[in-house]
Amino acid sequence: MRKMTEQHLINAFGGESQAHMRYLHFGNQAEKEKYDNVARLFRAIAHAEYVHAGDHYRELRHLDGGFVANSMAAFGPGDSVKNLKLAIAGETYEIEEMYPTYIEVAKFQGEKGAQRSFEWSYASEKLHKQLFERALEEVNSGKDIELDTIQVCEVCGYTLEGEAPDRCPVCGALKDKFTPFK
Amino acid sequence: MRKMTEQHLINAFGGESQAHMRYLHFGNQAEKEKYDNVARLFRAIAHAEYVHAGDHYRELRHLDGGFVANSMAAFGPGDSVKNLKLAIAGETYEIEEMYPTYIEVAKFQGEKGAQRSFEWSYASEKLHKQLFERALEEVNSGKDIELDTIQVCEVCGYTLEGEAPDRCPVCGALKDKFTPFK
Ligand SMILES: [Fe+2]
Ligand SMILES: [Fe+2]
Ligand SMILES: [Fe+2]
Ligand SMILES: [Fe+2]
Ligand SMILES: [Fe+2]
Ligand SMILES: [Fe+2]
Repeated sequence: MRKMTEQHLINAFGGESQAHMRYLHFGNQAEKEKYDNVARLFRAIAHAEYVHAGDHYRELRHLDGGFVANSMAAFGPGDSVKNLKLAIAGETYEIEEMYPTYIEVAKFQGEKGAQRSFEWSYASEKLHKQLFERALEEVNSGKDIELDTIQVCEVCGYTLEGEAPDRCPVCGALKDKFTPFK
Repeated sequence: MRKMTEQHLINAFGGESQAHMRYLHFGNQAEKEKYDNVARLFRAIAHAEYVHAGDHYRELRHLDGGFVANSMAAFGPGDSVKNLKLAIAGETYEIEEMYPTYIEVAKFQGEKGAQRSFEWSYASEKLHKQLFERALEEVNSGKDIELDTIQVCEVCGYTLEGEAPDRCPVCGALKDKFTPFK
């Protein structure tokens, strides 16, 4: 594998692992503030980031040993208003810079597996951002979000609200590969 | 907070988040190979790393925004023999280099909160390494590990096998702060 794409997979694994971790801790904070649906949202999206991290990690199965991941992450936890702002900032960075750039370089270097892994993640980050923005609007006025079941595809991390589709629109996985958070 | 200690907390949050993520995925692989206790061990220690990451993250609550974490992590997943070797390599790096150095710099810079957070993590990585080494010995000859209940302190991540103590020997938390994995 070409070294620059390889480093991007390493960085993306680091970024997704840290997003997963932040959202688990942000979920606990939301629960403390009695925003039960915001807590559920953080936990569902934490699970999507876990799937993303796993996909990138498997693309690196040819490696054997230690490498330094250089991963942007959002720091400075607080109440749920602050945490949602950090979550939105993190998703925005992934949508506007990280994944478009990593996809472009993977294409340029002909690294199809990495390209697919980046594209799969990229496809769900946009909905993550929208969901967090909806939550921030409510929490800004002291209310919990109204939220239907959140479904996460176990293969690619695609995330949606409502019923699971017959096939994942991103990776094609069947309906039973969706894990509901309700 | 002094900038070098701050960067070390950022890096350590990244490292713990990635260790947590690896162990979740390694746990799934161990389960596929019918090593149920190895799977349980990976999941218990994943939880300890989650506690470590949360402790470092809270020490950074004065921040507000994006920072790059430079975190060493072990890559190249495979079967449980390979995964246990990667886990041991990661714990060894934390025990022999990362935490002793981060603790030394935090002391030198008079950063007590960071020092405590690093010391808390450091205290359990040694047992993590021993447990993974025991598991590797068994899995090397095709057997699952014999394993009593694993207890993880929710405050500092201290990890032990057997009964929970009246007080955590590392942070002083009471018995009911231990989460059992059995
Ligand atoms: Fe993601
Ligand atoms: Fe996301
Ligand atoms: Fe999918
Ligand atoms: Fe740790
Ligand atoms: Fe550890
Ligand atoms: Fe403790």
